[in-house]
Amino acid sequence: MLDICLLGCGGSMPTPNRSLTALLVAFQGRKILIDCGEGTQVSLKMVGWGFKSIDAICFTHYHADHVVGLPGLLLTIANSDRTEPLKLIGPVGLRQVVAGLTVIAPNLPYELELIEVGENERFTECMGGMTIHTLPVEHTIPCMAYGIEVKRERKFDPLKAKENNVPVQLWSKLQKGNVITHEGRQFTPGLVLGEERKGLKLFYSTDTRPTTQLGEFIKDADLFICEGMYGDDNDLNKALENKHMLFTEAARLAKNAKAKELWLTHYSPSLVEPENYLENAKMVFDNTHLGRDRTIKSLNFYD
Amino acid sequence: MLDICLLGCGGSMPTPNRSLTALLVAFQGRKILIDCGEGTQVSLKMVGWGFKSIDAICFTHYHADHVVGLPGLLLTIANSDRTEPLKLIGPVGLRQVVAGLTVIAPNLPYELELIEVGENERFTECMGGMTIHTLPVEHTIPCMAYGIEVKRERKFDPLKAKENNVPVQLWSKLQKGNVITHEGRQFTPGLVLGEERKGLKLFYSTDTRPTTQLGEFIKDADLFICEGMYGDDNDLNKALENKHMLFTEAARLAKNAKAKELWLTHYSPSLVEPENYLENAKMVFDNTHLGRDRTIKSLNFYD
Repeated sequence: MLDICLLGCGGSMPTPNRSLTALLVAFQGRKILIDCGEGTQVSLKMVGWGFKSIDAICFTHYHADHVVGLPGLLLTIANSDRTEPLKLIGPVGLRQVVAGLTVIAPNLPYELELIEVGENERFTECMGGMTIHTLPVEHTIPCMAYGIEVKRERKFDPLKAKENNVPVQLWSKLQKGNVITHEGRQFTPGLVLGEERKGLKLFYSTDTRPTTQLGEFIKDADLFICEGMYGDDNDLNKALENKHMLFTEAARLAKNAKAKELWLTHYSPSLVEPENYLENAKMVFDNTHLGRDRTIKSLNFYD
Repeated sequence: MLDICLLGCGGSMPTPNRSLTALLVAFQGRKILIDCGEGTQVSLKMVGWGFKSIDAICFTHYHADHVVGLPGLLLTIANSDRTEPLKLIGPVGLRQVVAGLTVIAPNLPYELELIEVGENERFTECMGGMTIHTLPVEHTIPCMAYGIEVKRERKFDPLKAKENNVPVQLWSKLQKGNVITHEGRQFTPGLVLGEERKGLKLFYSTDTRPTTQLGEFIKDADLFICEGMYGDDNDLNKALENKHMLFTEAARLAKNAKAKELWLTHYSPSLVEPENYLENAKMVFDNTHLGRDRTIKSLNFYD
């Protein structure tokens, strides 16, 4: 089960009614945070999932609404008695931004491990059972979309094991993924495991135009969390100029990628009532929802 | 009239129920902000006094709860179309802190004018009719208390002008503060003005132990806004160790300085119900009030 909390739904600047867009993802007790604007730590506190088990803070880009909250959060994590290293992942510029912002958090009780992803690079790493992927997207400064995938283990199949003449004493080790040489024969896990099973795919993309690559990246998403800076299709010129998206553009991406569900977020402060434009998006992709501060969902293998 | 808004009453870290301690002061349309923690700009937005007319942002010190909000606020002020220079005032380290934090706000449409006050120095400057004073206080890092004073102009006194044989055609210019030489005689404003009148004195001090110098600094305050990190007198050791104050210590400062009114603020996150300890402070200084997020008061010459 992959637990997801959209910590905020605002874009550009924090406002009294909306926290800034950021995403908390939890799997088997470990957590990843994507983006950290001013006030993100307050939203994290309201959710109550804890600070100490956040193993990585990922940044889409370094506009202030996605990063101002970093030094305060690092200090609050320090206050939670974390001593294990913490990963910071982001596009080019990460070292400079972190060096600048941590001028007021110079003595943390844990190490920061910085992973700076090159402008045209794609990064992949498995952390605590979750695989993080990134994709460069199209904004006014270097920006990345994130995917988080969880594999579902293949089931042990005793009939298959018997058919393949696997000695019973090897079953358990093979089930755990080991390759074993026994009496001159090599046994692989595939000899005792059933078919590949569908895992879970979550994608998060803010501050970009819709691109062909993004459409491919989010293929078969269980949940796609996407910016919807503007609700009104008449704001297309603004979206083009500021490198953001309309609700309907996000919906089209979700539809074409055969996503199961779409959450819109990162609303412009001028978009006071996003619900007025939800129908536009639903006409394109029916399972569209308006993200709200601290919207929570658990993605389940069995859904 | 000096308008005062305590933007928050929390200390250490932002929490869902308290904004971080910061003070907005307005006089004749111009504004000064003291401290700018994570979320201060949200509190400013809730108050609705505007961003463009903030002429100075003053820092007591550079612990994160007093400064993380700076880059976001600078961008929001930029968004308000300000082009006039903005003063940043603070103890030693200001240049380094501002250089670090503005790594994500590199292109502001106005200049930043940095005033770094030496560790044992006292700074005074008149801005928009308000005189800002600072005093070094006793915290774990260099820290300053702030005073903001507004002078009340002396009244024009026609009887005195006549007694002093001031020609009528000079009255208006002398009333405006000019010194005039007329027919070989020098005329000073004092010849036509009544007695000195009491102005307004506001003081703001967080993150310090009570010191003799602080007691002298806040003499005759109309309003003293002071940290009360701990309500319980049994927390004295914590206060000593962390260089903070008890409610009763703040009250004693106010009493000895013959302050008119005391607001407590900068409560520890562990101090969930400060009202439980208000009586302790009132036993020492009766006109003590618990500061709350966005407590507003206008100090008036006529009070």
